[in-house]
Amino acid sequence: MTERELIDTVLRLACAAVTSGRGGPFGAVVVLDGRIIGRGENRVTSENDPTAHAEVIAVRNACREIGHFELLGAVLYASCEPCPMCLGAAYWARVEKIVFAADRADATAAGFDDAFIYDEILRRPDQRRIETVAYRDPAPGFDALAPFRLWREKEDKIRY
Amino acid sequence: MTERELIDTVLRLACAAVTSGRGGPFGAVVVLDGRIIGRGENRVTSENDPTAHAEVIAVRNACREIGHFELLGAVLYASCEPCPMCLGAAYWARVEKIVFAADRADATAAGFDDAFIYDEILRRPDQRRIETVAYRDPAPGFDALAPFRLWREKEDKIRY
Repeated sequence: MTERELIDTVLRLACAAVTSGRGGPFGAVVVLDGRIIGRGENRVTSENDPTAHAEVIAVRNACREIGHFELLGAVLYASCEPCPMCLGAAYWARVEKIVFAADRADATAAGFDDAFIYDEILRRPDQRRIETVAYRDPAPGFDALAPFRLWREKEDKIRY
Repeated sequence: MTERELIDTVLRLACAAVTSGRGGPFGAVVVLDGRIIGRGENRVTSENDPTAHAEVIAVRNACREIGHFELLGAVLYASCEPCPMCLGAAYWARVEKIVFAADRADATAAGFDDAFIYDEILRRPDQRRIETVAYRDPAPGFDALAPFRLWREKEDKIRY
C-alpha cells in the first residue's frame, strides 16, 4: 500500500467511528514490512474507556498480532497528530515513525483537548490544572523506592 | 483509608508486579469518595502490551466499575510519577488529583524511559527521536479534515 492509501485508510476508520456512533473522529493503523498489523478507531464513549484512542488500540492490536510488546521498525499512521497519551504509547512501543493527517490545532478546533494536554505536560507538576502531588512522609516505613530495589535485584526480569 | 494507606497499597501492587514476574515495578489505584474503584499493576511484558501501565489499567478498571469514561472527582494514586502516556490518560479521564510516591528521576535511575519521553514531547515533532511527519498531499481527494466535519455535523454525538 502507498502512503496515500494508508492515510486514506486511517481517515476512513476515523469517519466510520463517527458515523457508527462508536466514538470520536480518529483512526490509526500500525504498518510493519508494508503490511497493516493493527487497526484502531476511537471508542472512548462506546467502551467507556478514556484510553480507547485509535492509536492506543492500533498499538495494542499490533502487539497482539506479533506477540511482542515492542513494534520495532513499525510505522504508526494516524488520522490526527497523536495526543500526549498516544505519543507516549508510540514511544513505549518503540515504533520507528509516526505519520499523521490533521494536527493538534485541527483537533482543538473540533473541540478536543489535545493541545491543552500538551500545554499542561510542559508545566511543572505543581502548576498543572490537575493537582499533581509528590507524596512525602517522614514517618517510618514509607519507602517509595522499594519496588525499584526489587526490580534491580530480580535476575530473570524482562526489561522493556 | 488514609493517604498513607493508599500509597502503601500502590507500592505493594508495584512490588507484586515484580515478584510475580507480571511486569515492571509500578502500581496504581483510583479512589472515588474514599473507596478504591480501580487497581492496576504494570503488565507490559506478561500481556505483550506496551500500554499496560499501572495507571492506564487502574483508570480503565475504574471506568468499567462506574460505567463511564470520566472519573470526575477521583484521585489517582501511583507508585511513581505517571509517564506522559499515563498523565495523558489521567487528563482524558478528568481525574481531580494525582498523588505519586517515586518520581521520574527515580524511574530513570531504575532503567525506564519516563524522563526521556517527557523530554521528547517537549521537542518539535520534526526534532524528535521518533520521526513524526505531517502528511501533506496536493493531489485531489486528500481531505484530512473530513472526520472532523462529520463529527461537527453529527447531532447525537457523545462528547468527551
